[in-house]
Amino acid sequence: MGLLETIRTPADVRRLTPHEIDELAAEIRDFLVQSVSRTGGHLGPNLGVVELTLAMHRVFDSPHDSMVFDTGHQAYVHKLLTGRQDFADLRKRGGLSGYPSRAESEHDIVENSHASTALSWADGIAKAYAVQGQTDRHVVAVIGDGALTGGMAWEALNNIAGDPNRRIVIVVNDNGRSYAPTIGGLAHHLDTLRTTRGYENVLSWGKRTLRGSGVPGQMAYDALHGLKKGLKDVVAPEGMFEGLGLKYVGPVDGHDAAAVERALVRAKAFGGPVIVHVITEKGRGYSPAEQDVLDRFHAVGKIHPETGLPLAPSRFGWTSVFADEMVQIGRSRPDVVAITAAMLAPVGLAPFAAEFPRRTFDVGIAEQHAATSAAGMAFAGLHPVIAVYATFLNRAFDQLIMDVALHRAGVTIVLDRAGITGDDGASHNGMWDMAMLSIVPGLRLAAPRDEPTLRAALRAAVDIDDGPSVVRYPKGALVEPIPALDSIDGVDVLARHEGGAGPTVLLVGIGSMVPTALAVADLLAAHGLRVSVVDPRWVLPVPAALVKLVGQHDHVVTIEDGLVDGGIGAMLAQRSREAGVTTAIASIGVPLAFLGHATRAQIVADLRLRPEDIAKDVLVALGAARPTPPSGA
Amino acid sequence: MGLLETIRTPADVRRLTPHEIDELAAEIRDFLVQSVSRTGGHLGPNLGVVELTLAMHRVFDSPHDSMVFDTGHQAYVHKLLTGRQDFADLRKRGGLSGYPSRAESEHDIVENSHASTALSWADGIAKAYAVQGQTDRHVVAVIGDGALTGGMAWEALNNIAGDPNRRIVIVVNDNGRSYAPTIGGLAHHLDTLRTTRGYENVLSWGKRTLRGSGVPGQMAYDALHGLKKGLKDVVAPEGMFEGLGLKYVGPVDGHDAAAVERALVRAKAFGGPVIVHVITEKGRGYSPAEQDVLDRFHAVGKIHPETGLPLAPSRFGWTSVFADEMVQIGRSRPDVVAITAAMLAPVGLAPFAAEFPRRTFDVGIAEQHAATSAAGMAFAGLHPVIAVYATFLNRAFDQLIMDVALHRAGVTIVLDRAGITGDDGASHNGMWDMAMLSIVPGLRLAAPRDEPTLRAALRAAVDIDDGPSVVRYPKGALVEPIPALDSIDGVDVLARHEGGAGPTVLLVGIGSMVPTALAVADLLAAHGLRVSVVDPRWVLPVPAALVKLVGQHDHVVTIEDGLVDGGIGAMLAQRSREAGVTTAIASIGVPLAFLGHATRAQIVADLRLRPEDIAKDVLVALGAARPTPPSGA
Repeated sequence: MGLLETIRTPADVRRLTPHEIDELAAEIRDFLVQSVSRTGGHLGPNLGVVELTLAMHRVFDSPHDSMVFDTGHQAYVHKLLTGRQDFADLRKRGGLSGYPSRAESEHDIVENSHASTALSWADGIAKAYAVQGQTDRHVVAVIGDGALTGGMAWEALNNIAGDPNRRIVIVVNDNGRSYAPTIGGLAHHLDTLRTTRGYENVLSWGKRTLRGSGVPGQMAYDALHGLKKGLKDVVAPEGMFEGLGLKYVGPVDGHDAAAVERALVRAKAFGGPVIVHVITEKGRGYSPAEQDVLDRFHAVGKIHPETGLPLAPSRFGWTSVFADEMVQIGRSRPDVVAITAAMLAPVGLAPFAAEFPRRTFDVGIAEQHAATSAAGMAFAGLHPVIAVYATFLNRAFDQLIMDVALHRAGVTIVLDRAGITGDDGASHNGMWDMAMLSIVPGLRLAAPRDEPTLRAALRAAVDIDDGPSVVRYPKGALVEPIPALDSIDGVDVLARHEGGAGPTVLLVGIGSMVPTALAVADLLAAHGLRVSVVDPRWVLPVPAALVKLVGQHDHVVTIEDGLVDGGIGAMLAQRSREAGVTTAIASIGVPLAFLGHATRAQIVADLRLRPEDIAKDVLVALGAARPTPPSGA
Repeated sequence: MGLLETIRTPADVRRLTPHEIDELAAEIRDFLVQSVSRTGGHLGPNLGVVELTLAMHRVFDSPHDSMVFDTGHQAYVHKLLTGRQDFADLRKRGGLSGYPSRAESEHDIVENSHASTALSWADGIAKAYAVQGQTDRHVVAVIGDGALTGGMAWEALNNIAGDPNRRIVIVVNDNGRSYAPTIGGLAHHLDTLRTTRGYENVLSWGKRTLRGSGVPGQMAYDALHGLKKGLKDVVAPEGMFEGLGLKYVGPVDGHDAAAVERALVRAKAFGGPVIVHVITEKGRGYSPAEQDVLDRFHAVGKIHPETGLPLAPSRFGWTSVFADEMVQIGRSRPDVVAITAAMLAPVGLAPFAAEFPRRTFDVGIAEQHAATSAAGMAFAGLHPVIAVYATFLNRAFDQLIMDVALHRAGVTIVLDRAGITGDDGASHNGMWDMAMLSIVPGLRLAAPRDEPTLRAALRAAVDIDDGPSVVRYPKGALVEPIPALDSIDGVDVLARHEGGAGPTVLLVGIGSMVPTALAVADLLAAHGLRVSVVDPRWVLPVPAALVKLVGQHDHVVTIEDGLVDGGIGAMLAQRSREAGVTTAIASIGVPLAFLGHATRAQIVADLRLRPEDIAKDVLVALGAARPTPPSGA
């Protein structure tokens, strides 16, 4: 590893000869494979941008020139070239972030990992340089071909094209496959796929699905990056970009470092906005990744560096139950269709797509369109199910209100990875969903606690035809089914500790926090409190039965895996206030702040969301509220 | 008015001869001018689409075929042809809505008046028809050229182009001017402009601004609709749309009814997605409108039908104070820049743009880009002020969190028309803003009550450089300044009624509801209650001083012009609960439901937000909470 260790700043990269650059590229690939296979992380995307990143740092002068990476998961090489070569604790607390991080380096600008934002950042930065007369500063934005399907990218292109003097270089990193069923964290699900289909089947299934009618936008997409035409025939994008008034350089072989460098030099010299179209291969140079046609190891758990097989395959319980139930529903309900925003497999829609290709719609990275086109489908007699990671639904807030809810469209939204997700950092946590959805008129939301309640919630949701319905569940493994002792007007009673003689405490567990609520109840019961645990399952609108239960207890604690502010506990408190119920309600959940990257368990501990933390806080609160310890009544 | 009266359904339109169509078009123009000048409404856009709408109803068979109007304010002609000719109470309660309305007619599908959604609706409807094998049903979407700058439109085009068999006809209604300073409700501001500049100046100012550097996207836009090229040279859009895989017909003279009809017939026969590019003139056929270069009477208050002069010019107090203060700030702060999403004049940025053209950025109908590019500007040393109608900020929720707030970008957002706006219907009410913004980490929000507090809030906001700051105010006239008696740690005390002997009541007035709070206080004081009125001015995050004040009173009532659920009152209640403050808090505001079109006063009365309603409810609540009337203590 001779050369890589000598690179401390981008200036060191600029000093190398072309031959040394090729050598360094090989070293970096080696480093990434060895390192990321140990820690997990986005291997494929970073293997694809080795030469591109090297060329960027040779042609431009960061941080004087600004480099913006869209979604940011392809910034590992950038990190290696800007003084960050200790990848031992990648994505772990205290280690390097899996994304650009302003706390790590002045070379990092944008941390948001939601797609399609880079061009807007670039436009803003370039406008600011222009206003301040800093005409020698360039902005380079790297955006994937898939991210160009997002509407924000179009808004930005339209603006960037508006000023021929703005020094913006847009690198379209075209690996021809971040779209359609292959986008996102699909490798997370590879072990599930392998189990159900075998690797060969996956391969042919992938091709079938790509070609099938279930993949809209395909033609546009093909035109955009010349998928079916071969490099020399890529004429359409040029026409399109030039029509907008943007200069276009390319396509360039993204693994020919010298060619990429020449293209960037040309683009830089032009002095106005230019698109540089670079063709790369995700997973380039790592043969297990190259053979993985579906995803090229977009993001890997820990894998064996030789075979590429997962060392510790994860189970994706919640997602796979959804996947299975969707197929069942699809068989009995021909009106039910599925929509994904470029995440077919990660959200669990692959089995549905395989069985019902004509009823499956991948809209690209386009959550706004997903929501509004779903409203259109509902108008015309279908019941669409949009499956999406919780964090990305924030993109469709307006459409959810003005198209789905206002029109009382029967649209079901399934939120995967709701709540605290952990190691992917602040922008991946799905902690806004319930607070945001609580202000959508007429919306109904279920937070199932286990497999049976997830299946039941989804069945009930697709029966709701007069407004939006939402089912949300977390990332990760399922718990064992938690049976109800009893049900009070739809609110499940899960535990009753009636032995004590203290004040009565009602614990309301929301979705994935039900096991925590049960554990808290055990701890409180051991302190002599009379504790019940309930799970309303459908939490929006807040059930009247739950408000009534609140009024029958001395103290209520809600526990949720989402924002406390505006969350379910807050809504329950509000409805209780409105009903004249004066019982004190403590809402436990995620405070209003961004969460740094760490494991979910670490974050849960930090936020005092472990059972022992919550039990302690409840005891303190009860002590404070009742200065005399509960000895008699 | 012979012909128009004979049109009961679209079938009646189809029976007419071409000559009769021309006659009918003239009658409709006459009707619109006479009628809308009496009632107010969107005159210009509807005068522009008379022939287009006639042709649509001749070529397509609504409701078997689906017609979707983007933003919907150009649906008056459609209403006239589908059995709705009583325009006497347009936009009044009980009268016709100013937008399509499903309650009015089976010919109306989409009510959302937020721009750029029509293509997504059309895509969804067409997908549903295809899934259900209804291959004889067409979808026609009418979208303005300005709305094509919105990212959603791109997402939809990308999807529509993806299936060559989908029967979608996209009519681009290109009047070449819904973009840049001329979009939106500018006529509302014409009287202000006339006063300050005179009509001739307005004209030349408009041209200067259009050409000035403050208008980005201009080149792209010109290419898009051939503004500078003349009709026969409009080649770029064809190239662009065809690059996407979309067929293109046009450009067609939108006021040649027969030509439009021929184009639509051709598009219908094609059997796949087609763009029909129709060139129209906003305000066509009404000479005061044609001469009004800035806006062509986009939306008018009541005007004289001969001269086009306003009969009852409105005052736009809040907007004009913002406009003035922005100019003042601009003079002392060269780093402050302004951003608008195609609403330069309506939001009050015209004076700033006139003085600082290079520091003014119109991004098109692109709120997402507005927010994220602002984060980029802040990174690079500027302080951007985004001025937008409150309802449209919902579009940028994700960007506000992930780009502005996560990156602690010093970006100020100014929300005009926050709260209940009234006659434009459900989707124009700016009632989501405070609830939505209360879950953005690190965001600070001011709701000024009058001119001095608006000026102070804006000054303070542009000094906040480590996160988003928001200033929100309502539509309409300013109240007289309301001086504070006192200030307690930043919370203004506006009234103290200490004469009574009953329980102490604290009324918290938020922004525009401060006068209501003061009036409620008078009523309660007359009932012997001890009442104080405070205005925290900065309401997010909830000031600690306000929580402390809550603890010092027996009963607290918050009054706001936004959603009760998740609103400021709810947040205050939550912070109070967390602080162990047990005072009962009643939150008064807008319930979680869509508001039908009516005057603001009617809606306020319906929601029991008048002072007498609130006072009565408070007295009842106090009676309920305290069964013994307050006689002694």
